Amino acid sequence: MLLPHPTADQISLATVLSVLGDPTRLGIVAYLARREGMPMNCSQFLDLGSKTNLSYHLAKLREAGITHAEVLGTSRLITLRRDDLDARFPGLLDSVIAGAKDFPLAFKGIEAMDA
Amino acid sequence: MLLPHPTADQISLATVLSVLGDPTRLGIVAYLARREGMPMNCSQFLDLGSKTNLSYHLAKLREAGITHAEVLGTSRLITLRRDDLDARFPGLLDSVIAGAKDFPLAFKGIEAMDA
Repeated sequence: MLLPHPTADQISLATVLSVLGDPTRLGIVAYLARREGMPMNCSQFLDLGSKTNLSYHLAKLREAGITHAEVLGTSRLITLRRDDLDARFPGLLDSVIAGAKDFPLAFKGIEAMDA
Repeated sequence: MLLPHPTADQISLATVLSVLGDPTRLGIVAYLARREGMPMNCSQFLDLGSKTNLSYHLAKLREAGITHAEVLGTSRLITLRRDDLDARFPGLLDSVIAGAKDFPLAFKGIEAMDA
């Protein structure tokens, strides 16, 4: 099943920035960036928030065009829309990801998951 | 008179992104970027919104550490905090400014003012 996604042309700078401007969502994006090319399952972000909370944040990211989500059975496979974002706003995603490295909250759960 | 500003270290990525994620504020930032080094007065943004509306947006930008504002008599002189932002989040401001060029709303007032 494919959830609704904006096309690349529909991705808006104001929406992308506003949706990225949240510690939990920055944490999710930073994590996806570190595992690029490897689709992540919702449950792998559980250290960043409750299930309900994460569903909300993941929907925001998808609706803004920052992530791509595919429903596969009971799982949701999430990837960054790097090509679309890089084409629309060159350099933006890289600078955000680099900035999120200084962001301890964003990496709290990530380090634990890597251990 | 100097209004309250965060120090460079206090500038938060999440706050900067969230505050930039608004069409009017993107318009203000794009305009400041085009006139860099030249402090702008509040009234020069009036095409982007009403006075009350602009005061709100300009306060948001200042409190997030994106702009510097100085009260001089009845004027407020506004500049981008480019050095601080570039040091904290390299490339972010440039990619946002470049993206705001595709943003017709942001430049509506600007073209009129340039004419």
